[in-house]
Amino acid sequence: MGHYSDITPLKFEGDRLYILDQTRLPGAEEWLEPETADDIWDAIYKLKVRGAPAIGVAAGYGVYVAVKHEAPETVEEFRAVFDKVCEYIKGARPTAVNLMWAVNRIKNKVDNTAVTSVNQALDLIRDEAAAIHAEDEAACRAMGEYGLTLLKPGMGILTHCNAGALATSRYGTCLSPIYLGMEKGYDFRVFADETRPLLQGARLTSWELNKAGVDVTLICDNMAATVMKQGKIDAVVVGCDRMAANGDGANKIGTSAVAILAKRYNIPFYMFVPTSTIDLETATGEDIVIEERDGKEIYEMWYERPMAPAGIKTFNPAFDVTAADDITAVVTEKGIAYPPYSESLRKLVTGEDK
Amino acid sequence: MGHYSDITPLKFEGDRLYILDQTRLPGAEEWLEPETADDIWDAIYKLKVRGAPAIGVAAGYGVYVAVKHEAPETVEEFRAVFDKVCEYIKGARPTAVNLMWAVNRIKNKVDNTAVTSVNQALDLIRDEAAAIHAEDEAACRAMGEYGLTLLKPGMGILTHCNAGALATSRYGTCLSPIYLGMEKGYDFRVFADETRPLLQGARLTSWELNKAGVDVTLICDNMAATVMKQGKIDAVVVGCDRMAANGDGANKIGTSAVAILAKRYNIPFYMFVPTSTIDLETATGEDIVIEERDGKEIYEMWYERPMAPAGIKTFNPAFDVTAADDITAVVTEKGIAYPPYSESLRKLVTGEDK
Repeated sequence: MGHYSDITPLKFEGDRLYILDQTRLPGAEEWLEPETADDIWDAIYKLKVRGAPAIGVAAGYGVYVAVKHEAPETVEEFRAVFDKVCEYIKGARPTAVNLMWAVNRIKNKVDNTAVTSVNQALDLIRDEAAAIHAEDEAACRAMGEYGLTLLKPGMGILTHCNAGALATSRYGTCLSPIYLGMEKGYDFRVFADETRPLLQGARLTSWELNKAGVDVTLICDNMAATVMKQGKIDAVVVGCDRMAANGDGANKIGTSAVAILAKRYNIPFYMFVPTSTIDLETATGEDIVIEERDGKEIYEMWYERPMAPAGIKTFNPAFDVTAADDITAVVTEKGIAYPPYSESLRKLVTGEDK
Repeated sequence: MGHYSDITPLKFEGDRLYILDQTRLPGAEEWLEPETADDIWDAIYKLKVRGAPAIGVAAGYGVYVAVKHEAPETVEEFRAVFDKVCEYIKGARPTAVNLMWAVNRIKNKVDNTAVTSVNQALDLIRDEAAAIHAEDEAACRAMGEYGLTLLKPGMGILTHCNAGALATSRYGTCLSPIYLGMEKGYDFRVFADETRPLLQGARLTSWELNKAGVDVTLICDNMAATVMKQGKIDAVVVGCDRMAANGDGANKIGTSAVAILAKRYNIPFYMFVPTSTIDLETATGEDIVIEERDGKEIYEMWYERPMAPAGIKTFNPAFDVTAADDITAVVTEKGIAYPPYSESLRKLVTGEDK
């Protein structure tokens, strides 16, 4: 068993980056030590590091170690290597907003500084990566503290997918209040949906909560209604991949069903959303395009025997949109928003009234 | 591709019983030819034949082939063998109501007839098994015809678990109207929930619909809300394991969530319930005890790699109870019942007004 604050998807220690290979969890806890741009690209592309915030932090440090590995000798050589590495790493997951954002932030920092030596430039990159890391950790901690005000000791809490420490620098988004509460002796009982098809709940959420000593029970997605009906659940906490201005929130497939069931059983449903994930330019969930993925994820994963007839047609949406009406409150690092979200979210994000 | 009427979990041909080994589906289509009481016990115990009606029919013919195999030479020998075989087969799944019912029905037939020769007694058993078989097939056909009056050509239909031909003699309960409609050119588009943890939807429902040429799409359980929201679903059809007098219906875990989601999206939810499954002695769903099964089903099935941390706590209820309020209509072989079910079900089952 470990302490929750030890659970992290990556470490930067002794000038080296270490990434926990999440594709090997929960069977093996294996730390990668990426050194080249190829190593970083591979870790991001193959989901060895995943979760929007964690990808951003990994990319930041990744640019640093990859450029350092190339050992440019002049400022000119540095520029060429730096630009190439940035472009290359951004291509690992072109749709991951945090990946672009983190690399661009480092690029802007370098571009807007008078670079006079390779060492100075490397220091700039490393410090900016560390800043991204520290800011993410602080945001997760703040979300945890705000979130904890919504929870009470002894509560049964249901979560879906993984918006935990493994998806961020530390703490997680929606699991952050669970860890902070545990420290205060809140004694939560957590139920984790396994989250088909890729089983992030079974593989990752169960793993990190279990490791931190949180009382966690794994269920299949289709058992959520039963634990709610049996009175085992007092609150639902989930993460968010993108929230529209009206409060509609896209998250892992199955989240919207959990919200509808929670409403039916009068259980509050809390979505944890860093303000960077709130897109005021997107009016409603209708405007969010849902990615469809390969049906093989449904019928082939890890199985030795066929689990569906050969050639079966599938439909495999990766996300769904939870209606703002089904969300009791939105927890951000700047505070908690309540309906009507079209007002409260704008105020939180921009810091001003309309 | 086969014709739907060829899909059956068992056949009795040339005085021999053949059972389709459902544990090998969909990878292999393997017909067992049980001859001894041990063969029958094994097929039922290991779920090679499953589904309440199918188990009853298999048990009926099973008593016949097992007794014949022992080749009793006198009426006294027959009695001893017959009693032993009946008791033994009933023990294969002690909680399967249809297993007890079918074996007891055959036992009563023999007990209430003046047995004068072994051959006469064997004929009695075989004819009673054939009667059980024919009655089940007729009931499924009738449920299909009543059910079809609720559906329209071109509809998108969602189903959960397997209440199809493989669970009955032929046609199935809730899949019966789909097969009958297909024959009339109704062109249904069926969506099958995979039905975790044991994947009856992926392994069995997809297999039989696909084989019969029905347009079927496999989804994970947590995608049901999305296909409903996207307007792909016009009706939900499911089976039932036990219905209380007030219309609360126990069925495979996850069914109640599908019903709640269907209500949210204004989609009719039809439960297909042979009148033998309606228990007027059970007042409401509160009185139905839900079986909990081994958590290994959740985290171990078929997987080469661990899919959850070692020693993880699980909760694995096998069934849930759908509230009568969430059921649009109950389709039986005697007709369709509508709310209030406490009146309509009693009338259908007993044939008289209160």
